[in-house]
Amino acid sequence: MTYDSFLPGNQSWKEIASEKRFRNMDKIPRNWILPESVVKKSQTTRSIAGHFIEDLLDEETLSITKLDVPDIVERTSNGSLTAVQVVTTYSKRAAYAHQLSNILLEIAFDIALERAKELDEYFKKNQKPIGPLHGVPLTLKDQFHIKGLETSMAFVGWIGTFEGKKGTRKEKNTESELIRELYSLGAIPIGKAPETNNNILGYAWNPHNQLLSTGGSSGGEGAMQALRGSAFGIGTDIGGSVSMPASFNGVFSLKPSFGRISFKDGTGQMIMPTVAGIMGHSVSTLRLVFKALLSTEPWLYDPYVLQVPFRDYLVEETSNLSFGFLKDDAIVTPHPPISRALDIVEKAMLAAGHETIPWEPPSVNGSIAIHGPIARGDGCPDVYEAIKLSGEPIVPEIRHLFPNGNLQPPMSLVDYEKVVVHMKSYRQRYHDYWSSTASKTSSGRPVEAIILPVSPYAAVLPGKFFHSPYTSFINVLDYTTIVIPITFADKKIDVVPADFMPLTDKDRLNMETYDAEMYDGAPASIQIVARKMEEEKLLAMAQVVVDALKKYWQSEEGKRHPS
Amino acid sequence: MTYDSFLPGNQSWKEIASEKRFRNMDKIPRNWILPESVVKKSQTTRSIAGHFIEDLLDEETLSITKLDVPDIVERTSNGSLTAVQVVTTYSKRAAYAHQLSNILLEIAFDIALERAKELDEYFKKNQKPIGPLHGVPLTLKDQFHIKGLETSMAFVGWIGTFEGKKGTRKEKNTESELIRELYSLGAIPIGKAPETNNNILGYAWNPHNQLLSTGGSSGGEGAMQALRGSAFGIGTDIGGSVSMPASFNGVFSLKPSFGRISFKDGTGQMIMPTVAGIMGHSVSTLRLVFKALLSTEPWLYDPYVLQVPFRDYLVEETSNLSFGFLKDDAIVTPHPPISRALDIVEKAMLAAGHETIPWEPPSVNGSIAIHGPIARGDGCPDVYEAIKLSGEPIVPEIRHLFPNGNLQPPMSLVDYEKVVVHMKSYRQRYHDYWSSTASKTSSGRPVEAIILPVSPYAAVLPGKFFHSPYTSFINVLDYTTIVIPITFADKKIDVVPADFMPLTDKDRLNMETYDAEMYDGAPASIQIVARKMEEEKLLAMAQVVVDALKKYWQSEEGKRHPS
Repeated sequence: MTYDSFLPGNQSWKEIASEKRFRNMDKIPRNWILPESVVKKSQTTRSIAGHFIEDLLDEETLSITKLDVPDIVERTSNGSLTAVQVVTTYSKRAAYAHQLSNILLEIAFDIALERAKELDEYFKKNQKPIGPLHGVPLTLKDQFHIKGLETSMAFVGWIGTFEGKKGTRKEKNTESELIRELYSLGAIPIGKAPETNNNILGYAWNPHNQLLSTGGSSGGEGAMQALRGSAFGIGTDIGGSVSMPASFNGVFSLKPSFGRISFKDGTGQMIMPTVAGIMGHSVSTLRLVFKALLSTEPWLYDPYVLQVPFRDYLVEETSNLSFGFLKDDAIVTPHPPISRALDIVEKAMLAAGHETIPWEPPSVNGSIAIHGPIARGDGCPDVYEAIKLSGEPIVPEIRHLFPNGNLQPPMSLVDYEKVVVHMKSYRQRYHDYWSSTASKTSSGRPVEAIILPVSPYAAVLPGKFFHSPYTSFINVLDYTTIVIPITFADKKIDVVPADFMPLTDKDRLNMETYDAEMYDGAPASIQIVARKMEEEKLLAMAQVVVDALKKYWQSEEGKRHPS
Repeated sequence: MTYDSFLPGNQSWKEIASEKRFRNMDKIPRNWILPESVVKKSQTTRSIAGHFIEDLLDEETLSITKLDVPDIVERTSNGSLTAVQVVTTYSKRAAYAHQLSNILLEIAFDIALERAKELDEYFKKNQKPIGPLHGVPLTLKDQFHIKGLETSMAFVGWIGTFEGKKGTRKEKNTESELIRELYSLGAIPIGKAPETNNNILGYAWNPHNQLLSTGGSSGGEGAMQALRGSAFGIGTDIGGSVSMPASFNGVFSLKPSFGRISFKDGTGQMIMPTVAGIMGHSVSTLRLVFKALLSTEPWLYDPYVLQVPFRDYLVEETSNLSFGFLKDDAIVTPHPPISRALDIVEKAMLAAGHETIPWEPPSVNGSIAIHGPIARGDGCPDVYEAIKLSGEPIVPEIRHLFPNGNLQPPMSLVDYEKVVVHMKSYRQRYHDYWSSTASKTSSGRPVEAIILPVSPYAAVLPGKFFHSPYTSFINVLDYTTIVIPITFADKKIDVVPADFMPLTDKDRLNMETYDAEMYDGAPASIQIVARKMEEEKLLAMAQVVVDALKKYWQSEEGKRHPS
């Protein structure tokens, strides 16, 4: 499937989009342009993550871009790697990733290199790093403003404008608070990634299995992480848009509660508040970046960030812990790879001396009835207007929001208030249930966190995504979640059990779409969830899970079930 | 003006209201019933606070009810006073206050006495207090549920129901989270106070000057504090409903940001979130109660309370501080007593070595355009329905919400979102202005807090209240504020300057309603405001102001301007 083949509509928006694509390609140095043969080969190769992209890299690029963020920082902080080396190698890999997957809406290699030189000069002069992320290259979903770059959110109508408006002189001249913080910490943005499906770059296919989706909506960023085109990424989330792409692309992510990471001068909605989340290759990376961001005291600059520093004291114990464990949400059973991933985690946790208790919270139907009206009860006029600006077609993923292409009337404030009252009640019931588990754990404390699917899918076939409440309930509760990649779908073992009994009609439909052959090789992840504002504790608990898994894979049993 | 004379409408709701009044009076012990002559005399006496009510009290009652909360706790914690003594004397004084001012919608003397006996037994057995508020009697605005008491919010239609609903069996059988916390700390509710004007008890006149209002909406609680019928009070606030009554009644108050004090299972709106605040007779009391509430870890029980304990570390310095100082909001000049109160505070602060810088924030018009739509953009159907239940008339204070007695249509969610976006921008601009003051202070830090009027009035003539943005902007920003009583209106010195130039038409109108004779004796207060979630710091800054004032009154200059 090529990009142009599925783009209907008039020439005008197509031209604008096409020009942007060319402008982008122009920003890639000539010696980083891949031969057409390689690009063609990639289109017929199922997995382009791992070996495929790595085989294209020179030794230095490969060795540096294999490093995790703490390792990069260690080297840039002791002078054994320069920021220029790191930024250059990552930019090269990101350029390759973009040519293979169309996942850079904005390219900042030149700006990044200038900043890297500054950092190297700083290091030379001061013999110390500028901050805890000295020289670390990152990419972001295109909802943040960076000076020198355009922000389009992949709307064709936003190209050449500031958030759809012309003549404000703010375009390419605005900096989101989070970007300011990242720069001050030494991190260096090298590009911005698109929504999963869009009319500028086309569909972001899953690098681990190009038959599948990268997940919405931070899918471009998810693919960039899968291809290791940057050391870590920033996505945004109102119902799972960080967690699902992380999960589908086999990387870690942290979606905090609202008010921990700044979204000042980002582009996104306020009613179901947009939350920025971090994607990366380890819990250590998530912790390092999250802690570094809080060290900048973002509440001094953004009144929506809570004045709450990083709190180590939230972590009381790290051994003999109790976790809630949810195998399904009583509506849709996860596909076999996810159920197996959950089994692996449970075995690993039990083997490491922790206990799991069945998680039986208030019905997720309660959260479904809340999330939709709050996230989309306005009819999404902002999205509609942005699309109408250029006349581009509405991508299939959001067509249901605009029946027959029409904007729906918003709900009234009275109806909205009723939903808010329901939300209050749902939050209370969930909270009370969580607290009540103190009577079931051997510690006598409520469970430390819950372990559950991120979605029913190890990635997903486009058009076959039926169920998002495994993540959207977390936004309804304003809880915090970390995605942990566990294994990969394996057509030989991940088959629907002969005695599978669907929980609901939706479950039957969902399981019918499972195809062991098609899903083979897709990343299978789980998530670990803690209550509101418990990010510091959740990071520690995620590390507990990772440590248990590591031990498990080294055990006799684990060796029989390779990841 | 007697109660019945201004109540139109049919007999039925009048009967229901009347029965409730009688049931209430029945809960007052016979020997606490005041002679009719005293009640009559009180109606023709301007001030019934202070001497008037104190002259009616026996020596024990007077001496105990003069104590401030820290002094009560000291005595109940070392055994020199019993909880029964404290509760009995305060109940007696509250009974007097009610007979003079009609400010108890619910009377809990019997329940309180039982609890006091339990506490005394606990003390006897354990030789220590049950908590940091052992035996301290309080009253609350009737938006909290207490077991054994009705909750009517002064709606006739709610009498005999649970929030307007019959047959739920929840009436008199529900406990708000805040009440549970207060009980656990040793505090003892002795009654609940009404909205300022209501069809059950009538108008709550100001005990310091019965020509004037107690201020809305926690006016009943404000009057109770003015008459010292309880040791501290709890009110609720969406736009100044704690601060204004505290100010008009000459007592201290703390309105925190949303998410510090629980409002779980209270009755109030969520869109402009209802915030519970504390009223009392000193900053020490506010601090003690606030810190005690946080010590119960309310976030374990209410997911809307932030997991943020009491933080002493927010206070960096207490000497040579810089404060923003706002004399008027460029729309309405405060009446002369308030301007004089501000002058006193400024002189005291300067004399104590602090500095004041003129406060020139973003126009308050910005907050006015936000507060109304958010607080009342739904058309207030809850209030309307509660009133319609009984057919009681709409009190004048809220008639403007229902033109010709009709419910107005709510705004749409899209329009509401636009207001939320404006609010985000306003919060940012205010925050940035605050931060920018670092360049103007001698400390190099932004101002610690701002000092400004609570309203243009030292209390207010009913029907002559024109301007609330001095407090409502605080809710728009979700900032925190403490009211500090400074002095009393004095007809001899508080006159409109001959050269008064109105800032606006509203200012002219407002100043024309000032009448030195009518306002004489009304409490004149100021407020001190800190940013979101800075309650701990604000409490310390309020103490700085109080200490400066104390020193000032003892100085030569202060002695010439008696409070």
